[in-house]
Amino acid sequence: MSNPAMLHELGGRAKTASKQIAVASSAVKNSALELMAHTLVEKQDDILTANRLDIEQATANGMNRSLLDRLSLTPARISAMADGIRQVAALGDPVGEIIEGSLRPNGLRIQKTRVPLGVVGIIYEARPNVTSDAAALCLKSGNAAILRGGKEALHSNIAIAEALREGLSAAKLPADCVQLIKDTSRQTAAEMMRMRGYIDVLIPRGGTGLIKAVIENSTIPVIETGVGNCHIYVDEAADIDMAKAIVVNAKASRPSVCNAAETLLVHQSVAPSMLPTLVSALKQAGIALRGCEQTREILGDPDIIAVTEDDYATEFLDFTMAVRVVCSIQEAIEHISRYGSGHSECIVTDTHSAAEAFTSRVDAAAVYVNASTRFTDGGEFGMGAEIGISTQKLHARGPMGLRELTTMKYIVYGNGQIR
Amino acid sequence: MSNPAMLHELGGRAKTASKQIAVASSAVKNSALELMAHTLVEKQDDILTANRLDIEQATANGMNRSLLDRLSLTPARISAMADGIRQVAALGDPVGEIIEGSLRPNGLRIQKTRVPLGVVGIIYEARPNVTSDAAALCLKSGNAAILRGGKEALHSNIAIAEALREGLSAAKLPADCVQLIKDTSRQTAAEMMRMRGYIDVLIPRGGTGLIKAVIENSTIPVIETGVGNCHIYVDEAADIDMAKAIVVNAKASRPSVCNAAETLLVHQSVAPSMLPTLVSALKQAGIALRGCEQTREILGDPDIIAVTEDDYATEFLDFTMAVRVVCSIQEAIEHISRYGSGHSECIVTDTHSAAEAFTSRVDAAAVYVNASTRFTDGGEFGMGAEIGISTQKLHARGPMGLRELTTMKYIVYGNGQIR
Repeated sequence: MSNPAMLHELGGRAKTASKQIAVASSAVKNSALELMAHTLVEKQDDILTANRLDIEQATANGMNRSLLDRLSLTPARISAMADGIRQVAALGDPVGEIIEGSLRPNGLRIQKTRVPLGVVGIIYEARPNVTSDAAALCLKSGNAAILRGGKEALHSNIAIAEALREGLSAAKLPADCVQLIKDTSRQTAAEMMRMRGYIDVLIPRGGTGLIKAVIENSTIPVIETGVGNCHIYVDEAADIDMAKAIVVNAKASRPSVCNAAETLLVHQSVAPSMLPTLVSALKQAGIALRGCEQTREILGDPDIIAVTEDDYATEFLDFTMAVRVVCSIQEAIEHISRYGSGHSECIVTDTHSAAEAFTSRVDAAAVYVNASTRFTDGGEFGMGAEIGISTQKLHARGPMGLRELTTMKYIVYGNGQIR
Repeated sequence: MSNPAMLHELGGRAKTASKQIAVASSAVKNSALELMAHTLVEKQDDILTANRLDIEQATANGMNRSLLDRLSLTPARISAMADGIRQVAALGDPVGEIIEGSLRPNGLRIQKTRVPLGVVGIIYEARPNVTSDAAALCLKSGNAAILRGGKEALHSNIAIAEALREGLSAAKLPADCVQLIKDTSRQTAAEMMRMRGYIDVLIPRGGTGLIKAVIENSTIPVIETGVGNCHIYVDEAADIDMAKAIVVNAKASRPSVCNAAETLLVHQSVAPSMLPTLVSALKQAGIALRGCEQTREILGDPDIIAVTEDDYATEFLDFTMAVRVVCSIQEAIEHISRYGSGHSECIVTDTHSAAEAFTSRVDAAAVYVNASTRFTDGGEFGMGAEIGISTQKLHARGPMGLRELTTMKYIVYGNGQIR
C-alpha cells in the first residue's frame, strides 16, 4: 500500500476507535490499562527478541553508548514499563470533569465539560518506553494514539505496540486505540504531519531537529516539547551554600535532560566572593566551564575557556556550562529573554523584590525562586505522569499530564431559547 | 524598507512593548482603554475621511452591497467602536489570577499563574471595527497586538490604529502595543505567518480561504476561528413549536454568521408530521431549501431542489438550508461527524437519553439541547466580548474572551530544594 493510502486507512481506524474510547468509563479504561500492563510482561520474550535485533543493528551502525543504553530493554525495564501503565491506571480520570458552569439570565445552563482531544499523534525518537507511556496516557485521557517512533527502535516498538493492542482487545476495547506507524521514513513522517481530519493534535518528543521539522511542516496543531536552555541566576543577596547546592544539582545531577541548567549568571557584586566556590563545586562534579571575560579574570583559571554567543544559545545537554557575570538583575532577565527557550529559569536570592521582579518578568513555563530547575517534571509537580514538557504558550505550558491531553466542550441546556 | 526587514523591526518593537504591557496594572490598562476610546471619537473626522477613500475604491472595484455595508463607517459606528473599547475596560482583568496551586511534600510551593500570551497576531478581512475590538481585547489581556487587516479597509484601519496609538501614548504606555501592518500584499501576510520569535499566537478571522492559508503556511501556533457548518437535529420526541422556533431562529435570524444553522436533520418517525410545519416556517422566513429524497417525497414541493453531498459540506452563510431525514439519532450524529465543522450543534428533544447521547457523542465546541445555535457568542456566554470563536481543540474552543488570550506559568518557591 502506498504511504498516503496506508495513513488514510490508519487515520480512519483511529478516528473510529477514538469515538468509542472517548465515551468509555474510567473502570473500562483502567481494566484495559491493567490488561495492557499484564500483556506487556507476558510478551516479554517477544519484546526482548525484537529489542536484540534493534540493538544489533544500532551497534553495527555505530550508535554511541548512551543512546544504546536508552534503546536497550531488559526484563526489569519491561517490568518498569508495565508499572508505569499501572500508575497511569491509578491516576484520576480527567474526562467528564465540569470545569465551570453558569446559569444565564435567559435560563440557558452552560456547562464547560472536559472531553478527550480525539486522536493524538506522537512522533518520538529512540526510547522504546515512550511507546507504552504515551499509549497509556492517551488511553486514560480517552484518546486514540497514533505513534511514530524512531527507526532505531522499530522492532521493539512493533512488539510493544502488539502487546498493548492485545491488552486492549482483551478488555473489549478497539485495538486501534493504539496504532504504530511501521514505516519510519521521513516522507511518511512528513505525511503524518498533514493528516488533518484524522489527527487532532501532534506532539513531537525529541531533539531540536525533530521539533523544528514538525513546526515547519505540520498543518495539525502542535504542542512543542522539550528544548530547555535553562539558567540559574545567583543574585547579590544569595546564600552561598544554597546557591552552590542548586547550581550543582541543576547542572550535574542529570545533564542530558531538558530541565538541566546550561548557563550560570552571577551578579557582579558577589561574583568575586562566590564564583570561586561555585566553580570549584561544579568542576568537582565533572563540569567543564566556559566563562565570560569577567569570570575568567576573577578566577584566573586556564581550564575555563572563553564563552561565545553560540554557547549562550546552546542546550549543551552534557557536562558543559556557560558562566556569565551580569551587572544587575535586569541584565540577567535580558540575557534569559534573549537566549532562554522558555523552559525553566531560577533565581537564587533572599531579596523579596528581586524574587518578584524575576518571577514576573521572566517569560518561561516554570520560574523558580531558590529551587533547582530539575523539578520541572510531571511527577514532581504532582501530575503523576507526563507526556512531555511544553515550551509553547498555547494549550499547555510546562509538564503535560492527563489533563493537558484533553480539551473541553460547552454543553448548553435550554427549554426553547432563541436569540 | 523590504518586507522582511519591516516585519523584523515591527516584531522587535512589539516584543519590547509586550514586556511593558504584560506587567502593567489593570488601572493603567483601563485608563489607556478609556483614552483610546476617547481619541477614536476625537479623531472621527480623520477616520471618516479615510473610510470614504476605502468606500470609493471598493465601489469602483465592484464590491457587493453587503460587504460595502460592513466596510462603511458612520459617526454612530465609530461611537459604537469606542463603546466597545469602554466595555472591554469594564471587564475583569484575567492577568495575575492564580489558577491553582499546591504545596508539595518537599516544601516547594507551586503557583499556576495566568499571564499574557505576549504578542498576538491577528489577520482579518474587510470589517474595520475588528481593528479596535482586537486591539482593546489584546491590550486588556496584557498583550501587544500586530494587526493585519484587508486591503479594502486599509485607509480606515490606518486612521483607526493611529487614533488608538495616540490614546496609548496619552496613557504613557508604548504606542507599539498596537501596530498595523500597512502592506496588505499576500507575500507580507505569508511572511507574517512565519514571524516565530516575535509573534506568540496567530488568530485568523475571516473566511475559509484565509483560515486555510494560515494553517498551511504558519509556523506560529494558530487558533482557528469561525467556520460554522452547524446542524439542528429534530428528534422523535421533539416539541413541534419549540423545534419550529429554534430552526427558524438558528437559520434565519442572521444567516451570514458562523453560528447560523446550515442543515436541518429530522427523525424519520416525525418527518411526515413535522416537516411540513418546519419547512413552511422556513420558507416564510425567506429560506430556500434543498432536500434529500425522503424530504422531497414527503413534501412534494417543487421549490425544494435535490440536495447534494456538496451542499451538506457547505457553510451557505445565506438564505439556503439543506434538509435531510435520518432514520435514527445515530445517523444524525454520524451526519454531523462527517460534515460538521465542530462549531455548534443542536438537538431538539424531550427524551433524556437522546439528549445524553447527543451531548456526549457530538464533537463540537458547543452542543445544545433545546436552544438555538445562535447563542455561541462571547457576549451570550457571559464573557463580555470575544476575539473570535475557536473551532479547534487546542487552547481555546468556542467563544474566546480575555481569558483565552492568556497563557500561564508555574511560579515555584523553594528554600534550597534540590532533586
